[in-house]
Amino acid sequence: MTKVKAEIIAVGTELLLGQIANTNGQWISQKLASKGVHVFHHHVVGDNHDRILNVLKESHERSDVIVITGGLGPTDDDLTKEVVAEFVGGDLIEDTAVLSKIKSYFNETNRVMTENNYKQAKVIEGAKVIPNKFGTAPGIIVSHQSRYFILLPGVPSEMKQMMTNSVLPFLEETYNLSEVIVSKMIRCIGIGESQLEMELKDLIEEQSNPTIALLSMEGEVAVRLTANASSEKIANDLIETKAEELITRIGQYIYGFDDQSLNMTIVQMLKEKQQSIAGAESLTGGKFSDAMVSIPGASEVFKGSIVSYSTESKVNILGVKQSFIDEFGTISEETAFHMAKQAKEKLKATYGISFTGVAGPEPSEGKPVGTVYICLYKSDSDYQIETIQYKNNRESIRNRAIKKGLELVFNYLK
Amino acid sequence: MTKVKAEIIAVGTELLLGQIANTNGQWISQKLASKGVHVFHHHVVGDNHDRILNVLKESHERSDVIVITGGLGPTDDDLTKEVVAEFVGGDLIEDTAVLSKIKSYFNETNRVMTENNYKQAKVIEGAKVIPNKFGTAPGIIVSHQSRYFILLPGVPSEMKQMMTNSVLPFLEETYNLSEVIVSKMIRCIGIGESQLEMELKDLIEEQSNPTIALLSMEGEVAVRLTANASSEKIANDLIETKAEELITRIGQYIYGFDDQSLNMTIVQMLKEKQQSIAGAESLTGGKFSDAMVSIPGASEVFKGSIVSYSTESKVNILGVKQSFIDEFGTISEETAFHMAKQAKEKLKATYGISFTGVAGPEPSEGKPVGTVYICLYKSDSDYQIETIQYKNNRESIRNRAIKKGLELVFNYLK
Repeated sequence: MTKVKAEIIAVGTELLLGQIANTNGQWISQKLASKGVHVFHHHVVGDNHDRILNVLKESHERSDVIVITGGLGPTDDDLTKEVVAEFVGGDLIEDTAVLSKIKSYFNETNRVMTENNYKQAKVIEGAKVIPNKFGTAPGIIVSHQSRYFILLPGVPSEMKQMMTNSVLPFLEETYNLSEVIVSKMIRCIGIGESQLEMELKDLIEEQSNPTIALLSMEGEVAVRLTANASSEKIANDLIETKAEELITRIGQYIYGFDDQSLNMTIVQMLKEKQQSIAGAESLTGGKFSDAMVSIPGASEVFKGSIVSYSTESKVNILGVKQSFIDEFGTISEETAFHMAKQAKEKLKATYGISFTGVAGPEPSEGKPVGTVYICLYKSDSDYQIETIQYKNNRESIRNRAIKKGLELVFNYLK
Repeated sequence: MTKVKAEIIAVGTELLLGQIANTNGQWISQKLASKGVHVFHHHVVGDNHDRILNVLKESHERSDVIVITGGLGPTDDDLTKEVVAEFVGGDLIEDTAVLSKIKSYFNETNRVMTENNYKQAKVIEGAKVIPNKFGTAPGIIVSHQSRYFILLPGVPSEMKQMMTNSVLPFLEETYNLSEVIVSKMIRCIGIGESQLEMELKDLIEEQSNPTIALLSMEGEVAVRLTANASSEKIANDLIETKAEELITRIGQYIYGFDDQSLNMTIVQMLKEKQQSIAGAESLTGGKFSDAMVSIPGASEVFKGSIVSYSTESKVNILGVKQSFIDEFGTISEETAFHMAKQAKEKLKATYGISFTGVAGPEPSEGKPVGTVYICLYKSDSDYQIETIQYKNNRESIRNRAIKKGLELVFNYLK
């Protein structure tokens, strides 16, 4: 089993100015990883001859496969092909097949071919040419001292088509790739990253295949298992065996796997139980509802919400008694309780959930920014109220509150 | 005028596996560019001691300022601080101020501090420590042979806060930055990118300083002007002169500048007119409300919404007559009209706005996926209904619908 080391270079000053993110690097990484090719570096460099040349030298010293995106266009600042040709000591020659393809492309799209479009028909002598289905710049694979430079356009649709149809098959054949890498995400809620690490300390220390990595996201954490093997079946078996071990340890925190989100899990759980939920949102202003509605088929279990942002609406629409609000204020456990109760009753759901608090930037009713009350209500003898004090900005407080609310629902339903 | 060369290193295997894109690199690039700092390289490297060390060497040879994100967490595979300390030959020492901040952070958030959280309190001897407002890992600025390594957490909110409040001021002072790059975004709604290009064709062709770029975003477009000069005043003057020219041409489409969002503009306009709005959301499930509530101070003008996702709630809570729904269906101009009217009346606002439609994945009531009705209602003789047929996926249909709704409100109020 050959271990192939790869890196990805993106060429383009617009990336260094921060005008776009290097999403090509991300996509290519995923594809290479799925074939067992190890990507150890990403690099972004501008449209500058000397700097590109230096980056080529560094990458050629350490990697077997160097995928380069961008800089193949017709303009004068597109330099990739020229600098690679210089580095490998090859001439640029006009490829008649490529030229006739470019000509017919311009014909078909009724555009006039300019002089610098001829530049795009030049390829490095002896290189393998990858046809471009969606544009004019061909891709190029050139070998140099048993290593490969693979030049692809920066336009994502053109690059992706070439990667899938030409580059990946080329790499499979060249390196007789028999390794498969499979990943599984195990998503947890209600446990912090460091506590999770403590729970899994011995497994993390003795990890080999699959590897175990902890990832922290807003309000939740995940464990990523990554296995490599000679077949997808073997890789999956390795993953599943380890996953079962983890489930035994931390099962109570796990809400889903891979792309499963917490709201998706909750919609499923409610469907299975044939129950429903309704919301009363103040601080969160519709975000909880949005999290529900974003899941296809949520209408079976989500009855709706009342976004009672004004005190008036808490009384008139939701039906919270004015006397409660006068006594306890809108930002209080008591109001959270009555909001959740009224949401359940008005919207005829199994559960009501409410969110009230101070998102900032100013304190409110004498409560500091970040104070949040969440109530999950089923009946007067079956409800929970969570009081939290966040230290974040407005957006983050509201997002964390939703995550905490979903956590409450998940813990109740599980 | 010092020319400062910078590069950005992101540390994290998840980036090389393609699980996330390096958006931190993009954001930091923008901020450095705005101060006239030249970013010549981005690099991504995994959580691996030897490879991180090699990348540090390369970057230290060619750049004055090396910003490194990620790898400052509490777990064993967080290596950035350790490898940088090794490279610069500094010891890691416990910083009492940082430790007590971490302790109180855990106290206040009611979480238990584990052994490995103490690791985060260590800093490189002699380094400048950047406090972390939103998390536990401090930032670090360490000088080595007249060059600077700047270590920041990978969590975007923590990183951004440190860049803005500590790193940029530090760089301004250290390098006495005198070149200034200023950008201005001119945000438009109700015009497409190609039409905008036609309107500005001559200006785009003769652009020099400031440069003019058109950017297309979901449901809207923007023009970005970028000027560089020896002082902020000169750069701003160049920008403002050109901006005025653009305003003369395309003023009717402009809703805001720079970070001003369309919802922000609408909240301001409503405040100025001392008017208010309320929502009735079906398809959009709380997204309109969220767009309003996300603006600080929205409570003056946003009365709330009824997320009437079930037909039952349209009748019971919102008060749309069952007979209308029986006759026209919930996805219709008529129901959109009554939803908006009821939202205005129930929530006692100047305007009601409603959203109903088919987000998919399946058609509904015989209407194809992407059918959307939006009504903006002031009175029975003053209302508008927009019918749109989108060709997107669920998320995108819902986002476009909100943008279109905001456009309706903007055009009415302007």
